[in-house]
Amino acid sequence: MAKDGITARSKDYSQWYLDIVREADLADYAEVVRGCIVFKPTGYAIWEGIQSGLDARIKETGHVNAYFPLLIPKSFLMKEAEHVEGFAPEVAEVTHASGEELAEPYVIRPTSETIIGYFYAKWVRSYRDLPILINQWANVMRWEMRTRPFLRTAEFLWQEGHTVHATEQEAEEETLMILNDVYADFVEKEMALPVFRGLKTDSEKFPGALRTYCIEAMMQDGRALQAGTSHNLGQNFAKAFEIQFTDQTNTVQTAWTSSWGVSTRLIGALIMAHSDDDGLVIPPRLAPIQAVVVPIYKNDAEKAVVMEAVARITAEWKGKIRFKIDTRDHLSPGFKFNEWEVKGVPVRIEVGPKDVEKGSVAMARRDIPGREGKSFVPQEGLTARIVDLLEEIQATLYQRAVAFKESHTRTVSTYAELKEAIETGFAYCWWAGDSDDEKRIKEETRATIRCIPLDQPGGTGTCVYTGKPATKMVVFARSY
Amino acid sequence: MAKDGITARSKDYSQWYLDIVREADLADYAEVVRGCIVFKPTGYAIWEGIQSGLDARIKETGHVNAYFPLLIPKSFLMKEAEHVEGFAPEVAEVTHASGEELAEPYVIRPTSETIIGYFYAKWVRSYRDLPILINQWANVMRWEMRTRPFLRTAEFLWQEGHTVHATEQEAEEETLMILNDVYADFVEKEMALPVFRGLKTDSEKFPGALRTYCIEAMMQDGRALQAGTSHNLGQNFAKAFEIQFTDQTNTVQTAWTSSWGVSTRLIGALIMAHSDDDGLVIPPRLAPIQAVVVPIYKNDAEKAVVMEAVARITAEWKGKIRFKIDTRDHLSPGFKFNEWEVKGVPVRIEVGPKDVEKGSVAMARRDIPGREGKSFVPQEGLTARIVDLLEEIQATLYQRAVAFKESHTRTVSTYAELKEAIETGFAYCWWAGDSDDEKRIKEETRATIRCIPLDQPGGTGTCVYTGKPATKMVVFARSY
Repeated sequence: MAKDGITARSKDYSQWYLDIVREADLADYAEVVRGCIVFKPTGYAIWEGIQSGLDARIKETGHVNAYFPLLIPKSFLMKEAEHVEGFAPEVAEVTHASGEELAEPYVIRPTSETIIGYFYAKWVRSYRDLPILINQWANVMRWEMRTRPFLRTAEFLWQEGHTVHATEQEAEEETLMILNDVYADFVEKEMALPVFRGLKTDSEKFPGALRTYCIEAMMQDGRALQAGTSHNLGQNFAKAFEIQFTDQTNTVQTAWTSSWGVSTRLIGALIMAHSDDDGLVIPPRLAPIQAVVVPIYKNDAEKAVVMEAVARITAEWKGKIRFKIDTRDHLSPGFKFNEWEVKGVPVRIEVGPKDVEKGSVAMARRDIPGREGKSFVPQEGLTARIVDLLEEIQATLYQRAVAFKESHTRTVSTYAELKEAIETGFAYCWWAGDSDDEKRIKEETRATIRCIPLDQPGGTGTCVYTGKPATKMVVFARSY
Repeated sequence: MAKDGITARSKDYSQWYLDIVREADLADYAEVVRGCIVFKPTGYAIWEGIQSGLDARIKETGHVNAYFPLLIPKSFLMKEAEHVEGFAPEVAEVTHASGEELAEPYVIRPTSETIIGYFYAKWVRSYRDLPILINQWANVMRWEMRTRPFLRTAEFLWQEGHTVHATEQEAEEETLMILNDVYADFVEKEMALPVFRGLKTDSEKFPGALRTYCIEAMMQDGRALQAGTSHNLGQNFAKAFEIQFTDQTNTVQTAWTSSWGVSTRLIGALIMAHSDDDGLVIPPRLAPIQAVVVPIYKNDAEKAVVMEAVARITAEWKGKIRFKIDTRDHLSPGFKFNEWEVKGVPVRIEVGPKDVEKGSVAMARRDIPGREGKSFVPQEGLTARIVDLLEEIQATLYQRAVAFKESHTRTVSTYAELKEAIETGFAYCWWAGDSDDEKRIKEETRATIRCIPLDQPGGTGTCVYTGKPATKMVVFARSY
């Protein structure tokens, strides 16, 4: 049974998502700015948690942050043939400034390979300047036709890493290291979301890339969400922008580059992966508020007693638990319970006069709704108990997501089975088709090859579509 | 004597600044994007330190972060008369997207009062929704004619706080609290830079504000740099965007708003306040690298011994000192010393074979150049010694800046004295003039009233310019 204002997932998953975004106060529609949203404080706080976890991993793996211009001369986009084809149709253009028409228009960056490539060409001279390992946190804009909060918006926030290397092998190692040690590690450990790691087929790769690797997560409706991509750009951009260096033998060489990014669509993934018909569910490691304390009292005398206990209980929480004491006087406890459930706070602590007498509190966990998730526990040792519970909830959410992903991924050997499998999840199958085959399957089923997983069984099989002998297995799914 | 590539301050202060920016590798000119710069990793790391210190204070004082759209419908700018006059001449306009002309052009935000005002009008209904205390970290764009790295660039990074209150008094308290507890506290304690806190005159206030408060710092050439502003917007924007609420008596009221911001120009202030003819000087609390270790050796045998000692010495630094071990083999120790001096690292530790024998290291402090700042200290207890030294350097830089500000602020009683004082610093004087008087003085001297300090001596005096009786003292200076 869904809460007021939230459509049940089973009834309309798409509407359920929009209801969660609204009821949990995560975003507002910027209808006055086409396709844009406001990241409201509750939604933005999730992004801050994502930023913090990713930024630490990006720095631990040897990268530094920098910031490049928002505007890109329009001619820059044209320098890489595939790139312009991919992005030119969706850019916003700045044609005037200070009331005058500009000699050459700028585009608002849809991604920054071109403007950063221009600077890297200036900065790289010798093999000693390599590798360049830079990341940027920025806003980007892609004039999308169909938008959906967090998942697809005209303006979004992201990080984009851009690196330069002396050899193809180094660029490939960087691309895969980011995929595994930064993206998959973050999404699985912090977001509690298991992913497939794999290679994109040519028809799904980044415009201008040699190879695109990705992590793909499964949402509760069985559709795939691309949660991060890491591109080995080969020498495509290095040639277009003349990023060259003299090597140890004083020979001029063209460099190899990579780029990789994840965006605010991860907020959408987080919402869709764990939440339920009662509202948002946030894994504790990313929860802006991990525990909320709701004091319960009927009059000023009770209030004094309860608030004294609350202050005592929470005295040592700072730095250990991110918490909030809900002191709003004009709202009933029941209203507050509901609100914090909808907003996905992992643990709720209730303290009333009887709890004070007994030296206990009521403790409710968001991942197990109703009575089953509620227990009465002593005030003594509560801090450690909550810290442990938060880890337990994190593990529970991850295990649930793993079980869901496994039970909704079917190994299929015929096209008919594939079509059936993608109605509820992922289809895993041998593949020896080409881009035209992918296109036909997409037209017929709306499913695409999400990736060729890095982890392959080995051996050979029969292609699910063409019947040809195949050496690789792939994952088909409908996607966001 | 200045270093190679750095003009002496006494010779050409303006060129010295540009030389520091280049030699310390802080920024690159984005000549292909008019008036923009690239914030290179070393420069951006300073901004990350500034963000971290400010964000903590902004949150401690009860604010939360959010994110609003980059683009603003052009018509929004027109809704507040003074605001449009101030900003319309310097906006960049987006007129096309996806290859088609837009029905209404957008401007790239020069500041966000208008777009945020629009949303606040939607969100605020009752007095219970107030106060709204939101901050945003964002890029903004103002098409400036004359640009200078960090100090004035077409695109810059900043934070902008936007709050809504039920009463004028609350808005005023917020505006002043931000000035004192967030901006002045941060700039003085972390940037080691004393400031004047005061009110802007009407001719210098923010377009659309009722009152603008500011902090003003003194650079080494005696010019003022506005380091942060906090605006009581009165009901100007609330009226323009209809931000209204029903109060406790169910009467509809117009709200009161504030806005406040500091930007990447603080990086410019940091450079100009403390650096010397040898390069950048960064206060330890903001230094991305607080201590650099330069190992010294002539052969592999020495290298083994020295690197073992370096590993041992630095083993317990993590989490206490932000440090780097300079292991580059192709550069001489002398070259490295010079590079880290130019880049402003507060403490340099040198370890050679003789130091290993003696159980000591050489320790050089950046704030005292040459032999005087260098000492030989035991390896034992080194961590605590460096931690203490970092605090000492922070204090020394602040004291120097205070002494400089005091010795270059002259109390003047005649216009002739004022003109002389602003050649080398600030002029502090009684004032009873009007906007026309300010304009004339600006034309004649290029100096403006930087602020009417909050801290006033009381009593009355004679206006430095008009000779009229005056009740307020003001600070005149040339400014960046």
